[in-house]
Amino acid sequence: MALERIYGRHPVAEAVRAGRRPIRRLWAADRVALPEGAGPAKSASAQELQLLCGSPEHQGLVAEVNPFPYADPTTLLSGQGPTLVIALDQIQDPRNLGAICRSAEVAGADGVVIPSRRAAAVTPAVCKASAGAVEHLAIARVTNLASWLERAKDSGAWVHGASASAETDYDEADLSGPVVLVVGGEEKGLRPRVAQTCDVLVRIPQHGRVESLNAAGAATILIFEARRQRRKGTSRTPGPGTAKPKA
Amino acid sequence: MALERIYGRHPVAEAVRAGRRPIRRLWAADRVALPEGAGPAKSASAQELQLLCGSPEHQGLVAEVNPFPYADPTTLLSGQGPTLVIALDQIQDPRNLGAICRSAEVAGADGVVIPSRRAAAVTPAVCKASAGAVEHLAIARVTNLASWLERAKDSGAWVHGASASAETDYDEADLSGPVVLVVGGEEKGLRPRVAQTCDVLVRIPQHGRVESLNAAGAATILIFEARRQRRKGTSRTPGPGTAKPKA
Repeated sequence: MALERIYGRHPVAEAVRAGRRPIRRLWAADRVALPEGAGPAKSASAQELQLLCGSPEHQGLVAEVNPFPYADPTTLLSGQGPTLVIALDQIQDPRNLGAICRSAEVAGADGVVIPSRRAAAVTPAVCKASAGAVEHLAIARVTNLASWLERAKDSGAWVHGASASAETDYDEADLSGPVVLVVGGEEKGLRPRVAQTCDVLVRIPQHGRVESLNAAGAATILIFEARRQRRKGTSRTPGPGTAKPKA
Repeated sequence: MALERIYGRHPVAEAVRAGRRPIRRLWAADRVALPEGAGPAKSASAQELQLLCGSPEHQGLVAEVNPFPYADPTTLLSGQGPTLVIALDQIQDPRNLGAICRSAEVAGADGVVIPSRRAAAVTPAVCKASAGAVEHLAIARVTNLASWLERAKDSGAWVHGASASAETDYDEADLSGPVVLVVGGEEKGLRPRVAQTCDVLVRIPQHGRVESLNAAGAATILIFEARRQRRKGTSRTPGPGTAKPKA
């Protein structure tokens, strides 16, 4: 098992708090406060820390931990309350993946599903971009995203895909029941087979002159709209609701 | 006037489309398609392009242009329809500023206000992070953000600040009338004087275990909630509405 080196204040602190992958070794710059419970650290210069983790964004802290503990993709569909899962179709940019995971964690989503190929994996750079949120979040990798979406539909979730050419506005869709929100990769959007698998395609209305939101912005808007609808306990328009019959 | 070198496919293409700062010189890698209307380009290697713009993220295109044309801060409050302006209190990270500008442009906001000190300016890195959206957007710099917010209030806008300790949920606030949405810098949030100047403080409910959304995520959620309320033409709860008396 290849160990990983996560870096930065929030990533190391959240790894300790979450306790899913213990700190095996810790290096810290001299005047940096260690996260509570992190254990002893070996002193290291800024340059040494950069060499240890491969990034200048270490903020004086590098920790050696186990590889990211991916979740079983089936467990994401069996949480308490109506399912809220985000499925990402080939997000390539670690910063986008990290930002989406942070939004998903803050929104209390059940988890995130990513393809195992042609997509960013949960690397230390993703952990940093998520401010450590990935340490608390269930993230599953699947070899075939469309097949997993079919399984999610079978389990009773409504699969909503973000598409600029959709006719339904995202806030007209009923996201208050069990849903999987699917967001496509940068530039390309959803692949045809993934889009075809969705129950509903929704669009985020665009009022500007540039092409579109970035993937992290679109995912954040959808996740928090689902959360807003759940808080209200109401659906705004007649929609699929929670009573989806098993396919 | 110090010229700037913007880089990347979208930034150069949007600068050409927006026409606010003409391309003075253009360099391109050999097999890269030039944006329509960009004019002739000088051939350059990837390494030369990186030296010209100082970033490896040039995607084969670098353009020399005038410095970013900041807007007059008073004009942001006199657009058509109810004002929608985003004010940023000391956002330091160029990627966050770029992401927020992209969301603001896509949402059709009137503009963005940033402090002239202790905050990221609209550099080529910000232009890249915004996918060129800044080229179309009115962005103003002000020496004193709290004073500008007072002027915005005098003009009839309601100033809503994002604060984790606020008691009002963001979607319970009436954002359908003229509003300025204020988002604080990374880690620190709003400065006390800026928070005191706001008419209303709103929070984005947090359901997870990590501290908070990042600044770009929070700004994007607020901007699109304001846009959603405007599309509906309804306020969800009794709120300040559009009939604010002049202060």
